[in-house]
Amino acid sequence: MRRIVVIGFQSAGLTAAATARMADREAKITVIERRMYATYHPCGLPFAIGGDVPHIRHLVEAAPNLPGVEVHIGTEAKAIDTGAKTVEIQDRRTLRKGKIPYDSLVLATGSLPLKPPVPGVDLGNVFTLRTMRDGEEILAALPRVSRAVVVGAGAVGIEAASALRERGLETTLVEMQPSVLPGMLDPDMSDAVIDRLNQVGISTVCGKPVKEIRGGEKVSSVVLEDKEIPADIVILAVGVKPDVELAREAGIEFGPTEMIKVDDHLRTSAPDVYAAGDCAETRCFFTNRPIKSQLATTAIRMGKVAGVNAAGGDEVFRGVLNTVVSSAYGLEIASTGLTTQAAKEAGIETIAGRIRTLSKPYFYPGAEPIIVKLVVEPKERRIVGGQVIGDGAAERVNMLAFAITHNVTVDELARIEYCYAPPVNDCIEPLVVAAEAVLRRL
Amino acid sequence: MRRIVVIGFQSAGLTAAATARMADREAKITVIERRMYATYHPCGLPFAIGGDVPHIRHLVEAAPNLPGVEVHIGTEAKAIDTGAKTVEIQDRRTLRKGKIPYDSLVLATGSLPLKPPVPGVDLGNVFTLRTMRDGEEILAALPRVSRAVVVGAGAVGIEAASALRERGLETTLVEMQPSVLPGMLDPDMSDAVIDRLNQVGISTVCGKPVKEIRGGEKVSSVVLEDKEIPADIVILAVGVKPDVELAREAGIEFGPTEMIKVDDHLRTSAPDVYAAGDCAETRCFFTNRPIKSQLATTAIRMGKVAGVNAAGGDEVFRGVLNTVVSSAYGLEIASTGLTTQAAKEAGIETIAGRIRTLSKPYFYPGAEPIIVKLVVEPKERRIVGGQVIGDGAAERVNMLAFAITHNVTVDELARIEYCYAPPVNDCIEPLVVAAEAVLRRL
Repeated sequence: MRRIVVIGFQSAGLTAAATARMADREAKITVIERRMYATYHPCGLPFAIGGDVPHIRHLVEAAPNLPGVEVHIGTEAKAIDTGAKTVEIQDRRTLRKGKIPYDSLVLATGSLPLKPPVPGVDLGNVFTLRTMRDGEEILAALPRVSRAVVVGAGAVGIEAASALRERGLETTLVEMQPSVLPGMLDPDMSDAVIDRLNQVGISTVCGKPVKEIRGGEKVSSVVLEDKEIPADIVILAVGVKPDVELAREAGIEFGPTEMIKVDDHLRTSAPDVYAAGDCAETRCFFTNRPIKSQLATTAIRMGKVAGVNAAGGDEVFRGVLNTVVSSAYGLEIASTGLTTQAAKEAGIETIAGRIRTLSKPYFYPGAEPIIVKLVVEPKERRIVGGQVIGDGAAERVNMLAFAITHNVTVDELARIEYCYAPPVNDCIEPLVVAAEAVLRRL
Repeated sequence: MRRIVVIGFQSAGLTAAATARMADREAKITVIERRMYATYHPCGLPFAIGGDVPHIRHLVEAAPNLPGVEVHIGTEAKAIDTGAKTVEIQDRRTLRKGKIPYDSLVLATGSLPLKPPVPGVDLGNVFTLRTMRDGEEILAALPRVSRAVVVGAGAVGIEAASALRERGLETTLVEMQPSVLPGMLDPDMSDAVIDRLNQVGISTVCGKPVKEIRGGEKVSSVVLEDKEIPADIVILAVGVKPDVELAREAGIEFGPTEMIKVDDHLRTSAPDVYAAGDCAETRCFFTNRPIKSQLATTAIRMGKVAGVNAAGGDEVFRGVLNTVVSSAYGLEIASTGLTTQAAKEAGIETIAGRIRTLSKPYFYPGAEPIIVKLVVEPKERRIVGGQVIGDGAAERVNMLAFAITHNVTVDELARIEYCYAPPVNDCIEPLVVAAEAVLRRL
């Protein structure tokens, strides 16, 4: 009977345990989770803060029913002995220690929020937005604050700023890069997001790093190079770092990303130890170089592969495109693959087509703009990236991700078969309009 | 200078003219259209009747700006001389006749609504739903009617019944086949649509052909085998037949579908004469046999191919999956490829997986059910069809259509990369859940 141990019970760990259960009906599967509660939904936190999700505790899942999987909540993995194949654990309440032997081990230890390296990040009312506690503390602070600064205009920053604005706060979003959602969008697409944010009353400041956060016990302002923005509350949304101390102390190898190094089967350098999710590196679909992904969806997909392989299977994890969607005060923004800028940095020549069309026929009430940008490698005519803003953006970038991973050309995209009904969409699919725009430039 | 003539100015004709214009900047392009108005949107008619589209005249497009394309509205093509390569035309207002020579001709004459072969179809207040006049007459009749019967539960019938119900009429939908949307859905999926229709107060009667429509000057009832349904208004939505008299009289060949026979370049049997849209046959992607498609989207895609080829190009029109979406009182229903039933009829063995999941995470308000059925050929593990009901159904079947035409296996579908944000979708894409359900049965 194979003994499979999973450390971490979020997207990657939960999926790895569930997948291992399906792959090996006999295995003894044990999950170790430091948190005092089961799986929760960090991606839901901004929407609990904004009030769209009315009860923040709903983000914590009832312990899922995984028959034959033993889950130890509130239990810390203290050390891994990769020679003896044991994990040393400690119950956080009783402080009782123990050792669990494994035949396969999956590291799914996740990530921790980053803080910018400036003075004042530990002042009162300066928060990151990662844990249930973060969310609850922010909610508790809301009644006594009126001016907010969100640092970092990635997906979480955009959603946090929208949430605070929904609560009526005077909100400023500060981004070091020259545009918002810099990993997802080229600057020409980012402008539409900035317009939306400004329209709903969120101020945006791009291209300015934060120099200092000032205050007494609690924050009073955020200082940029050339201005000081008053703030009663600050949310730091500058990304996450892998939570990998356990792996480091076990002598497991790291990649150039400072994440756990894995091969295409998600095997680490230690025998029978796999890693999945935010703690492990992934590979870029285009360059095959190690990159960070740190998306819940990537964690789920990695968790499946690690779970199958930990149960004796032979599953490969391919490179990622980092397909992602965010919501700016209800405006859907999604992206997959390379932006024009990222392609340039990767040494890939591209041309792009950008179009603006409607979500429904012109005659149908409620038709909203859709903007699509397609990034295409002109020699092979292959799609390498896509950015979509508007209704249905998520499903459209999913389709583009599929097209990219299947090496589809822009000519083929222009010929796809699609459906049409006036209440749902327009009679020419926006992706086809965008593909035709690129073809005219090829 | 090439002379290109297009007969018909709907989806196929308009697209053919516009595409020919792009493909040959020098050509003289002439469009002949019998209607007294330019392109209109027949797919929008049910929504004008229901009131979602507030002004029915908005369905008529302002004559599009196609530089160098001469459009003759209100002009009938009377005859084609395929030897002399001329089209005889007549202006419907002045009755003046003329002849137009062509180097290439595109037939895009469209289709006409079918009526069931039963007594009473020509009584007052018995309508088809195809032309602007149909729509206007139905709207004019609405204030004086309270009980409606819609005959035929295809996409148009479902939408017409929803529209009449929205207007407060007591509405019954009658379908000869044992389930609704029989071309799109297997009976197990159709049940969810029937539930929706019944919930909003639309009665459904399946498996019963109409025997007779009774009345005096105006309709008073619709008679089935075993019951008589009182009706002040009847909408016949039993499909369309190709409008092909002109082609028939010109001696152009027909296929087994009784539509204009075309090859993979949409060439008819007459030299330099192409056909596109509802008047022309298409081929089934799976069997390569001639089939009816008669969708606006197919017409647009055929129009592109005919337009390019009429301008001297070399473009192929591949088989169709008949990817289609409809709306049952706001519920999105979409389908592509073969249903289990259609596959059986085509002699293709399949297995299916059907799942029910949510459009958003369980914790997000407004999460609605999504039902997905995947039809898979078990030997090659290829996807051959998909049916989706719920938000985002259209984009999801578009993705499945893409997968089918690229011979994607269900294993690959289970591994797709997708995006997630709580206000937009759930963290596991419903198509992946459905693919995994099929994999468990393989």
